[in-house]
Amino acid sequence: MGDPAGIGPGIILNALRDIRTGDGVLYVVIGDRDVFNGLAGPGVLREVSPEDAAAFRFPGSGISLVDPGGALEGNVFGKPTEKGAAKSLSCIDTAVDLVKRTPEGIKSAIVTAPVSKEAVAAVCPGFVGHTEHLQKAFGAEKVTMVMVGEKLKVVPVTRHIPLKDVPGSLTPELIVDTIRQVVADRYIVSGAEDPSIAVCALNPHCGEGGRIGREELDIIGPAVAAAARDYPRIKGPVSADVVFYKALKGEVDIVLSMYHDQCLSPFKMVDFDRGVNMTLGLGHVRTSPDHGTAFDIAGKGIADHGSMLAAIKLALRAVEN
Amino acid sequence: MGDPAGIGPGIILNALRDIRTGDGVLYVVIGDRDVFNGLAGPGVLREVSPEDAAAFRFPGSGISLVDPGGALEGNVFGKPTEKGAAKSLSCIDTAVDLVKRTPEGIKSAIVTAPVSKEAVAAVCPGFVGHTEHLQKAFGAEKVTMVMVGEKLKVVPVTRHIPLKDVPGSLTPELIVDTIRQVVADRYIVSGAEDPSIAVCALNPHCGEGGRIGREELDIIGPAVAAAARDYPRIKGPVSADVVFYKALKGEVDIVLSMYHDQCLSPFKMVDFDRGVNMTLGLGHVRTSPDHGTAFDIAGKGIADHGSMLAAIKLALRAVEN
Repeated sequence: MGDPAGIGPGIILNALRDIRTGDGVLYVVIGDRDVFNGLAGPGVLREVSPEDAAAFRFPGSGISLVDPGGALEGNVFGKPTEKGAAKSLSCIDTAVDLVKRTPEGIKSAIVTAPVSKEAVAAVCPGFVGHTEHLQKAFGAEKVTMVMVGEKLKVVPVTRHIPLKDVPGSLTPELIVDTIRQVVADRYIVSGAEDPSIAVCALNPHCGEGGRIGREELDIIGPAVAAAARDYPRIKGPVSADVVFYKALKGEVDIVLSMYHDQCLSPFKMVDFDRGVNMTLGLGHVRTSPDHGTAFDIAGKGIADHGSMLAAIKLALRAVEN
Repeated sequence: MGDPAGIGPGIILNALRDIRTGDGVLYVVIGDRDVFNGLAGPGVLREVSPEDAAAFRFPGSGISLVDPGGALEGNVFGKPTEKGAAKSLSCIDTAVDLVKRTPEGIKSAIVTAPVSKEAVAAVCPGFVGHTEHLQKAFGAEKVTMVMVGEKLKVVPVTRHIPLKDVPGSLTPELIVDTIRQVVADRYIVSGAEDPSIAVCALNPHCGEGGRIGREELDIIGPAVAAAARDYPRIKGPVSADVVFYKALKGEVDIVLSMYHDQCLSPFKMVDFDRGVNMTLGLGHVRTSPDHGTAFDIAGKGIADHGSMLAAIKLALRAVEN
């Protein structure tokens, strides 16, 4: 559901309307029944009780609704509340539970909708975002965040840390492990069997042979060389002010960057409305639209559901492979 | 001329062919006579002796050639030499000299062509690039590098330094001084009388209120607030993964970034072939195409002269204002 006061519920319903349901795929919306029935109209979503959901008893296809409980009583779009934040979190946990209970032979995926990190952190101290919460919930040692757009596919090696901490956080192991997770899921990420991967430099002009920083020589270069032994279609370090130009032209399929803004700035510039955030390494598929709760436009019917639609489609591609 | 073994001479001639000359503007090519006459054919460029050039005696319009001396004897495109690098440097110094000698009432500008930094540094220890060399030659206390493209106009506050040194290099004074140079030349940079200027954050998500770094609160925010007292059409810090999307949509005219790749990566992605590098603060106009010597394609007649053409046109706009 995401935060019930945000655009999450609306974009979920609009995206599901655009998906051809009934082709053997079971869509389960996890959220507040009043919020969803209020938006969709009564009877559109088939409610499944928490007991049936816990036993994974769902109708064979179509769209089901599971309400994990804790009625919101008067949810108002644009007005986030502590209760709403708590419910957005219990929806995530219910999704994790359902995915873990999925019977053998059925493949499952989680698509999350935007939550307010600050609001969830207020009811769940230590919450920093979906990615880290799911990492803990699934007991994953290392996860990788991938942004999949129509034009670019990018991977930040480090994520939400201060820029000054980036150089010290980079190790050959971290870079190699990230590359391996990307290589393992390269078809899901890129849609190509054999995508080319370019790894960004950290410093301007790729460090100019050590004159503008040594990380290219000491850390990134050796990591790329090690990874290339298993997957030769990888190269780097490549100057960041060249690699995105090449990626936009289609000469590079996936760009691995050293820090958040290095790839997110070019990515959002050209894929703002269609970006999908995907988490690799969970052992389960998880995608998410690449935007926030947008409380300012929630409930007005004007939110673009393109990113949510792309997130659902990417999850479908992932479970099919 | 730039490096005579690079694409500089060719793109200069091709760009000048595309410019409507003869409208009261005097174009002076400073370079090797054999190289230029070899490319243009004899008699196309009117050679002016160093003595006449030193006395600023030029024909009233058209294209003149000044050769500062030091014949190259057998320049080969794609094969840079020490002699060629030395001559590319003496061309720059001749340009500085001519600009300084420009008679009252005549406006002048320098457009530089790409040199090989490494090759020039070998004959002139300490040479790191045109910008710093010209800063010293003109005795400028502070200069600002601006990249002017068709789609984006961007300004890095710090330039060619290791990423790890960026946070420590940022001070409110540096940011305010950079903003002031941009504001002073805002029409030249943007083509608008009253452009909006956005200043990038340093950390992901604009530091999230101090949770992901404090530079936004301690350094960038106060600098923007101080600068906004003189020029209200400035705002920031703005998250870097949002500001370039807005700039590409036309909602922001000029983006000031904290470091090289933060703005050069988005810039080159969409303005690779038309970017112009401009130096503010010299007391004289200086522009340059935003690419290197491209030794690999030099002399083949295939180099795109669009960036050089844009650099000349921007220099014309600058001297007209």
